[in-house]
Amino acid sequence: MKKSIVLLALAAAGCASQGVLVSDMGSFHVGGREHTVRGQPVKTVTFTPGGAPATIDPNGVYQVEQMYVQWFKPARERGTLPLLMWHGGGLTGVTYETTPDGRPGWLNYFLRQGWTVYNSDAVERGRSGWAMYPEVFKGEPVFLTKENPFERFRIGAGPGSYNKDPARMRLLPGSQFPPEGYDNFTKQGVPRWTTTDVPIIAAYTALVDRVCPCVVLAHSQGGPFAFRVAQARPDKVKALVLVEPAGNGDAARAAALKDTPILTVFGDYIEQDARWPTIKGNVVRFLDEVEKSGGKPEVIDLPRIGINGNSHMMMMDRNSDQLAGVIQNWLAGKGFVR
Amino acid sequence: MKKSIVLLALAAAGCASQGVLVSDMGSFHVGGREHTVRGQPVKTVTFTPGGAPATIDPNGVYQVEQMYVQWFKPARERGTLPLLMWHGGGLTGVTYETTPDGRPGWLNYFLRQGWTVYNSDAVERGRSGWAMYPEVFKGEPVFLTKENPFERFRIGAGPGSYNKDPARMRLLPGSQFPPEGYDNFTKQGVPRWTTTDVPIIAAYTALVDRVCPCVVLAHSQGGPFAFRVAQARPDKVKALVLVEPAGNGDAARAAALKDTPILTVFGDYIEQDARWPTIKGNVVRFLDEVEKSGGKPEVIDLPRIGINGNSHMMMMDRNSDQLAGVIQNWLAGKGFVR
Repeated sequence: MKKSIVLLALAAAGCASQGVLVSDMGSFHVGGREHTVRGQPVKTVTFTPGGAPATIDPNGVYQVEQMYVQWFKPARERGTLPLLMWHGGGLTGVTYETTPDGRPGWLNYFLRQGWTVYNSDAVERGRSGWAMYPEVFKGEPVFLTKENPFERFRIGAGPGSYNKDPARMRLLPGSQFPPEGYDNFTKQGVPRWTTTDVPIIAAYTALVDRVCPCVVLAHSQGGPFAFRVAQARPDKVKALVLVEPAGNGDAARAAALKDTPILTVFGDYIEQDARWPTIKGNVVRFLDEVEKSGGKPEVIDLPRIGINGNSHMMMMDRNSDQLAGVIQNWLAGKGFVR
Repeated sequence: MKKSIVLLALAAAGCASQGVLVSDMGSFHVGGREHTVRGQPVKTVTFTPGGAPATIDPNGVYQVEQMYVQWFKPARERGTLPLLMWHGGGLTGVTYETTPDGRPGWLNYFLRQGWTVYNSDAVERGRSGWAMYPEVFKGEPVFLTKENPFERFRIGAGPGSYNKDPARMRLLPGSQFPPEGYDNFTKQGVPRWTTTDVPIIAAYTALVDRVCPCVVLAHSQGGPFAFRVAQARPDKVKALVLVEPAGNGDAARAAALKDTPILTVFGDYIEQDARWPTIKGNVVRFLDEVEKSGGKPEVIDLPRIGINGNSHMMMMDRNSDQLAGVIQNWLAGKGFVR
């Protein structure tokens, strides 16, 4: 990673004795609404052993569907707009932090490149909290077994390829995913609903209204959210970087994105997968609609540019810095880097 | 806040043109265990509209009870040990981030003071994720109404004091809590169980084993966890700062803390409260046991040193920097600051 060493040096240049990553940081919650519960019995709860019992009346007004956002200002600002990072389903903003095998992730990479970054947890995930169900969220939360993403995210070579022992996992040939980090990756997973798209999109839209104009980088389930929020706020979302989006936008409103620079990145092993040809096909059809309406969306199939072995969790793959570099170069080419 | 301005200048001194907060940062999950589910029916789930249906077999091995930890290295290291921040019940590490009224919180304060900080979300809260119940967690999660903490955390003047309109909230006389931030504070709340102390303590212990020797700063429910982990690892937890601990340690093992510097801080309005005299009484009795066994635990009742109006959420009160300064001075007095 000669390049990132150079950039590290650049970042450090502003500063005397040590590398500097962040000049300021903070967090906030955005969006959400109030929900009223009526007709439930009063409970007495002792929250802490040795504490005093408290009376909890479940009837009343609850805060629900807000979203947690953590922001970081780089030591040396070089991005022309803030970069918003939206994670995928069943995960949180942790996706972009330290990789499961312990290397700096895309959050640190883009901070070193001089971007102000807003990293969020979608509604109902992580530090955004979740609401009672079925009263507020419909349906049940989905929990994934440890082996499920191993196959579904194109890390393992099909059914039965998972093994708790990294040495005995059967990875796809040439896989860049670090098997020694897989167990840590499963610790990043959180329960998720499949019925919460509306409040999730509402909170992302509230974030965009608060901190944009901006560039949105979205992964997997974050992709369709980013498409739809950009369609609702084409004046505020100035560019979209979609990392294996798991769904598309509103085809009827494809024209809303005709002036938005869009980069979509797909990894390896898609054609041979049971589900990914369908998922990618849907996305490409949507991008075709954007193109017909006058847009110029760009798609990078990593294997076609000679980058092989990438899983759906490419920001955690061994070559994560190289992939971030591909995105950084595209953003620079569009004039978003000073 | 003349003092913190001076420290800001100090921090900035190491750096050319701008203030420097963090030289490096990252995150990890620690602890947890595997839980096996058997005999459940297979489900088909379409995770994303426009996505492809996936078969979810709920039977299998789940990762549960791990804990999320985010760490930050200061631009200029001055703490002699890392500082671990443990939040209270129904909350997450967000407690120590930006205050609900938008000021830098204790996380940034202690980073400016040169501490390496590990800020975590307890098991089952925030980015630690939560496990299925009743299969893994016993009982139901507790959700709090927006008004509940207003009275229970000594912000409002008793029953009926909450109002959505900050101008119409009835705060305790002289309260330091910023009413304009209360609505944001309610967005920080997450569901919590009252049955998960054992896995929470196990994960905190795993964190201590991984990153300590250290100083632990714990708030409310984090207090009894900190007492118990320090009793289990007196060689690794070198000092305890307890901000209104909501419970005590194991009285039978009080002697384990006889060589541990302990500062316990209590805010205002305790005597007049329905529950806090009991909670504080239990803690003080436990500290008396530590003292009898040869320890020298210190208690600061803020009103007794002329600092009035502090709620249970004192790290969010208007004078939060002043209170952090009280803690910083105590730590410096114990030799934990270079």
